[in-house]
Amino acid sequence: MLMHQGKIRYGIIGTGAIGGYYGGRLARHGHDVHFLFHSDYDYVVEHGLQVDSCNGSFHLDHLNAYHRAADMPLCDVVLVSLKSVSNNLLPGLLPPLLKPDTLVVLIQNGIGVEEDVQKMLPGLWLAAGLAYICSAKTEPGRVNHQSYGNISLANFSCPDGERLETVVTDFAGAGIKAGVVEYHEARWKKAVWNMTFNGMSVVLDAQTDRLMDGAQTERLILRQMLEIIHAAQAMGVENISDDYAEAMLSMTRKMIPYSPSMKLDYDFHRPMEINYLYTRPIEEARRAGVSMPMMEMLEAQLLFLDKTNHQ
Amino acid sequence: MLMHQGKIRYGIIGTGAIGGYYGGRLARHGHDVHFLFHSDYDYVVEHGLQVDSCNGSFHLDHLNAYHRAADMPLCDVVLVSLKSVSNNLLPGLLPPLLKPDTLVVLIQNGIGVEEDVQKMLPGLWLAAGLAYICSAKTEPGRVNHQSYGNISLANFSCPDGERLETVVTDFAGAGIKAGVVEYHEARWKKAVWNMTFNGMSVVLDAQTDRLMDGAQTERLILRQMLEIIHAAQAMGVENISDDYAEAMLSMTRKMIPYSPSMKLDYDFHRPMEINYLYTRPIEEARRAGVSMPMMEMLEAQLLFLDKTNHQ
Repeated sequence: MLMHQGKIRYGIIGTGAIGGYYGGRLARHGHDVHFLFHSDYDYVVEHGLQVDSCNGSFHLDHLNAYHRAADMPLCDVVLVSLKSVSNNLLPGLLPPLLKPDTLVVLIQNGIGVEEDVQKMLPGLWLAAGLAYICSAKTEPGRVNHQSYGNISLANFSCPDGERLETVVTDFAGAGIKAGVVEYHEARWKKAVWNMTFNGMSVVLDAQTDRLMDGAQTERLILRQMLEIIHAAQAMGVENISDDYAEAMLSMTRKMIPYSPSMKLDYDFHRPMEINYLYTRPIEEARRAGVSMPMMEMLEAQLLFLDKTNHQ
Repeated sequence: MLMHQGKIRYGIIGTGAIGGYYGGRLARHGHDVHFLFHSDYDYVVEHGLQVDSCNGSFHLDHLNAYHRAADMPLCDVVLVSLKSVSNNLLPGLLPPLLKPDTLVVLIQNGIGVEEDVQKMLPGLWLAAGLAYICSAKTEPGRVNHQSYGNISLANFSCPDGERLETVVTDFAGAGIKAGVVEYHEARWKKAVWNMTFNGMSVVLDAQTDRLMDGAQTERLILRQMLEIIHAAQAMGVENISDDYAEAMLSMTRKMIPYSPSMKLDYDFHRPMEINYLYTRPIEEARRAGVSMPMMEMLEAQLLFLDKTNHQ
């Protein structure tokens, strides 16, 4: 099946810091993009979508905004940028947008999201989207993209690998660095940063810069990263070595002070993505005979904090 | 050397929640006890010492109170109940009280305190005092003993084992359950509770009851206790088995909601006893070839929190 650029229709499920940025860039570059909004719908219909970005800010005066998925058109590619704690909504949200060959890209954190969504919607063509981006939704209809912005796509169950390349081409044309990577390698590499900095920033109430400022916490995070890397290696993930931990620390040292998404969720009393960021990878590692004592400890600490945080 | 009860002179270095309670009971039962006070000295000289105790409250109108160790008399037994973070003061505080055969009992938490004090004062006769007690100093000259109260003595470097038995007899006569136990076993058994509940209560800002209320944290604390028990076993400590963890959890379940001493230190912006409660036992275990990943993680989290807590 051949698709010409410009004829691809994109759907964005969950237009926040991530979906608003990537979908916004695609729309700004002339792509046919349809956005599902939740609480921001009325505001965006009236005021449009503002993207403040280190790569150039822009404003979309008019956009295809929807409040209900049932009102959205069929799409060729759907980017899902909901928080994974809401993935139970996907069997209701996705079907109105689906053709038999629609590619659904889960731009979400953690391990196991594709597996679980596939169980809910068995025939779905799924890919993972791994966003390397510091971005936050600061107020209604306003996304603040602070740094980075690359995205990697990894095929999970799409029989047509060309589809991912087409999306990469569209992203590149819209000014977003993108590429196709191997699924397990990409998910576990992303987990190395996500499992350490998200949890530690919540438990110690600190942004990345303060965590990196203390020799003790920096050494701890290095050890935690190695625990994750060794679990991934034991599970057969290729191309992930101990060096990757140092590379992630080095990258973080250069970052602006940053609140990982889980810290924002905690600070704003929203549920945290503990399941896919901790519980699932820990379970998968255990099935491969590897224990992750430090990640288990972080998981328990986070579950404790989460329990009383949104009551 | 034979000592008759009643002729033993006791010195208390650091009269707070622990020294005030044990020294106070000894004094109330007619023993010759001399107390070193720091900030409470003026108050106590005027008002005496009040001990509110679940085993019977009492007030000492007049007590041998001192503001400087140099003014204290020679003692047969010195109970040191300073926080271990102040042990660097001992080479200044102890000598005025010391005869060649003075027994010094360190009623402190952690692993390595006796070893370090012995290095500072090589000829000293040292024992460990392990207080199983919920007690806090709530205001000047006032100790609040909430529950328990047993104390175990363990010989570290006293050539005359009889001395410890004499102290045990004095304690028993003053209404304090006491006994003599094996040094390494006692220190490590106490560490099982101390290393888990002290650190976890600080990091999660929770008293014992809330930590025991969550299945996740209770399971985590069980795993942490087993990590400590296995380290102790690997170091040759006898009579400590996995069952001990369940016994400690069961005891804690029956406790009133309790803030461990490290949590009080943190809440009142005092330095925490991280060195002897975490750093030293982790080092000793490492020397025996055992790693303690969960305790190392707790240590790093506590060091991070401590850094900005008393500036």
